[in-house]
Amino acid sequence: MSSGTKSLIFIGDGMGGRPIAGLDSQTTVEAADTPAMDRIAREGACGLLDPIAPGRPAGSDTSHMAILGYQPEKHYRGRGPFEAKGVGIDVKPGDVAFRCNFATVEGKRVVDRRAGRIKSGTHELAEAIQKQVPKIEDIQIIFEPSVEHRAAMVLRGPGLSHEISEVDPHHPDVDYLESKPLEGAEDLAGANKTARILNEFVKRAHEVLEDHPLNQQRKDEGKPPANIVMPRGAGTAVDLEPFEQRYGLKGGMIVEVDLVRGVGEYLKMDVIHVDGATGGQDTDEIAIARAIVEAFETNDFVLANIKCPDLGGHDGDCQTKIAAIEKVDRALAYLLDELDWDSTTIMVTADHCTPCALMDHSGDAVPLAFFGYGTRPDDVERYGERPCAKGIMGRLRGMEIMDVLLNMGGRAEKFGA
Amino acid sequence: MSSGTKSLIFIGDGMGGRPIAGLDSQTTVEAADTPAMDRIAREGACGLLDPIAPGRPAGSDTSHMAILGYQPEKHYRGRGPFEAKGVGIDVKPGDVAFRCNFATVEGKRVVDRRAGRIKSGTHELAEAIQKQVPKIEDIQIIFEPSVEHRAAMVLRGPGLSHEISEVDPHHPDVDYLESKPLEGAEDLAGANKTARILNEFVKRAHEVLEDHPLNQQRKDEGKPPANIVMPRGAGTAVDLEPFEQRYGLKGGMIVEVDLVRGVGEYLKMDVIHVDGATGGQDTDEIAIARAIVEAFETNDFVLANIKCPDLGGHDGDCQTKIAAIEKVDRALAYLLDELDWDSTTIMVTADHCTPCALMDHSGDAVPLAFFGYGTRPDDVERYGERPCAKGIMGRLRGMEIMDVLLNMGGRAEKFGA
Repeated sequence: MSSGTKSLIFIGDGMGGRPIAGLDSQTTVEAADTPAMDRIAREGACGLLDPIAPGRPAGSDTSHMAILGYQPEKHYRGRGPFEAKGVGIDVKPGDVAFRCNFATVEGKRVVDRRAGRIKSGTHELAEAIQKQVPKIEDIQIIFEPSVEHRAAMVLRGPGLSHEISEVDPHHPDVDYLESKPLEGAEDLAGANKTARILNEFVKRAHEVLEDHPLNQQRKDEGKPPANIVMPRGAGTAVDLEPFEQRYGLKGGMIVEVDLVRGVGEYLKMDVIHVDGATGGQDTDEIAIARAIVEAFETNDFVLANIKCPDLGGHDGDCQTKIAAIEKVDRALAYLLDELDWDSTTIMVTADHCTPCALMDHSGDAVPLAFFGYGTRPDDVERYGERPCAKGIMGRLRGMEIMDVLLNMGGRAEKFGA
Repeated sequence: MSSGTKSLIFIGDGMGGRPIAGLDSQTTVEAADTPAMDRIAREGACGLLDPIAPGRPAGSDTSHMAILGYQPEKHYRGRGPFEAKGVGIDVKPGDVAFRCNFATVEGKRVVDRRAGRIKSGTHELAEAIQKQVPKIEDIQIIFEPSVEHRAAMVLRGPGLSHEISEVDPHHPDVDYLESKPLEGAEDLAGANKTARILNEFVKRAHEVLEDHPLNQQRKDEGKPPANIVMPRGAGTAVDLEPFEQRYGLKGGMIVEVDLVRGVGEYLKMDVIHVDGATGGQDTDEIAIARAIVEAFETNDFVLANIKCPDLGGHDGDCQTKIAAIEKVDRALAYLLDELDWDSTTIMVTADHCTPCALMDHSGDAVPLAFFGYGTRPDDVERYGERPCAKGIMGRLRGMEIMDVLLNMGGRAEKFGA
């Protein structure tokens, strides 16, 4: 057993894809100019990763859970609790947690699901909601904003259930929805109550927001008002064994989105904030890379995620996605220079594919490359879906990754004699 | 269904490895001169094998169990029972079995964990122990020597538990250990009793050995005396369905170490002794190969293991490991000449990696090649971790091997219509 080795899981969010005719039938990863990834593939051990299983599109939450070794089929309770934890709300047993968007409606019709990706003022709006709607019936409302249009909410009190439908219709130009108990809900009384409270919350928050001076100002400036809150992703408290307890390693996490940050908070990892990490195309990838190097001063293990490749995929904009992948590559170039590869192993992968043609996650396998300490380099020449498929690591699943990484680091325990 | 086909699992113990800078970044298997293995790969169907699962270092016992289709997660009870069975002690329900080393101590300090790999006399020493310490409290002691410094012991009587720590510290130049109940032992009273008996056994065996004339003679000759017995690997009786009952095949086993032999004894296989099979670098590999050919006169299936590649790995001596792998290759060359490949399928693999740089088992996948009847040759040109990774068999697990082999032999049953 070798100690003192370091492991880094480095994820380009949604970075995997499908071939695009206009890119000479390459994927965006293959088309991007990625000297650092290519070196990692060329001098490392490559393969493909199914975050959950072949053909199963993963969410960022379930994928990160699996890659960290926590079976999502067993432990996943919806995105709500991760979003809430990610913005700092504690989610207790019995709570129901939601991801929320500030959005723009005209009457019932959703005009903009993100209120024009509102940049500022949501803290003020959230404060007004929290002050004027602190409670509905016997249920406490805990509402916290995050960056841009994002927020999270927790309902706390007796007799709640997560088995309810969403308010967010997920598309513009349709009416927002009334929450209802899910068909076949096990706790129908609880679901009825929770849906009723949620609909009442949406109505009352709408009233608070419509009259808010900040929205009047936005209208005057020709911007879409953030005049409604649309909850989705109801979920209950998650019970996950802390990362350090599970692996005996101090684990750090550097990510840009609340959803994944929430996973790290649940695992009681060292969740590190990076100035300049915006989660957008303008993120400071070198600041993130620098933070990773610093994180290893106090951690044995780090998981990092850069969000921007996923955005271009969701927008169906392959040039933007390529630019984002090249941004990710610059962070990797920094790490190649700055980390000690005689004692560090990195795995470079994606948490799922977000093919531009689909504008959503797909269940295709993502490329995978291990580089540095304890790896067995193969003869793959560059990073990408097709080149990596020929590597020595074959096809792995998310749930196998921690074992593989710990083994490379000489930290795996022998089973047997 | 074709009958009359033969299957051979041929294992180079610990033969897998990692690239070594001084070997031009080849593994020992890749660097060794192995014309027989290379022919098997070139004319056969290659892949990689995870004996347990990706990244999980396997022991020889758990790996052989899995490769023979017996789930170690379900059936493994520690190495003790296999070691005991391997030297011919029956392990009954309620017994606790141990692997033991004859070792050399000065006071409490371990000077040599193997008493200078003592070559002869341990039968006499064991007899003295067995005669003078037949029983402690109400517990019967059954002690049997094996080759060199190796021995096994069984404690038999009421109220025992395997949940105790080891006496063998696994390193020289430290004190040997007092056995204690494991933290969280389910049967604390049993563990307390077993640890007490074990410590008393170690003390009394030490007295017997210190005064034994054979050790006086060793000291006079300047050899380290075998003056203590250090137990480890406590385990309880295993319940495994016999091989023939499970598969409807007569199965033979030709192996050099008690640990694996014990697996064969538990499976009621035809465990064959080979004169000249020493388990060391001096083993007679042609005698082993000849015994394999003979074993097929009465068996449909044979598992063979040659131990020596593992030794070089544990010693961190890659030249010795290469020489051992070339020895394994000579046995294969004999088999290529002597077996009827129109009706026989061979699988050549390792039970785990023992990388020279780690001097212990690792959880890296091992190379795998099937040759002969029922195989689908691919275009892999030579045997080794990296070449085999490109083969048609992909990445298999130990638990899948018997199905794959039986299928190649036309002996697999159709599931469905």
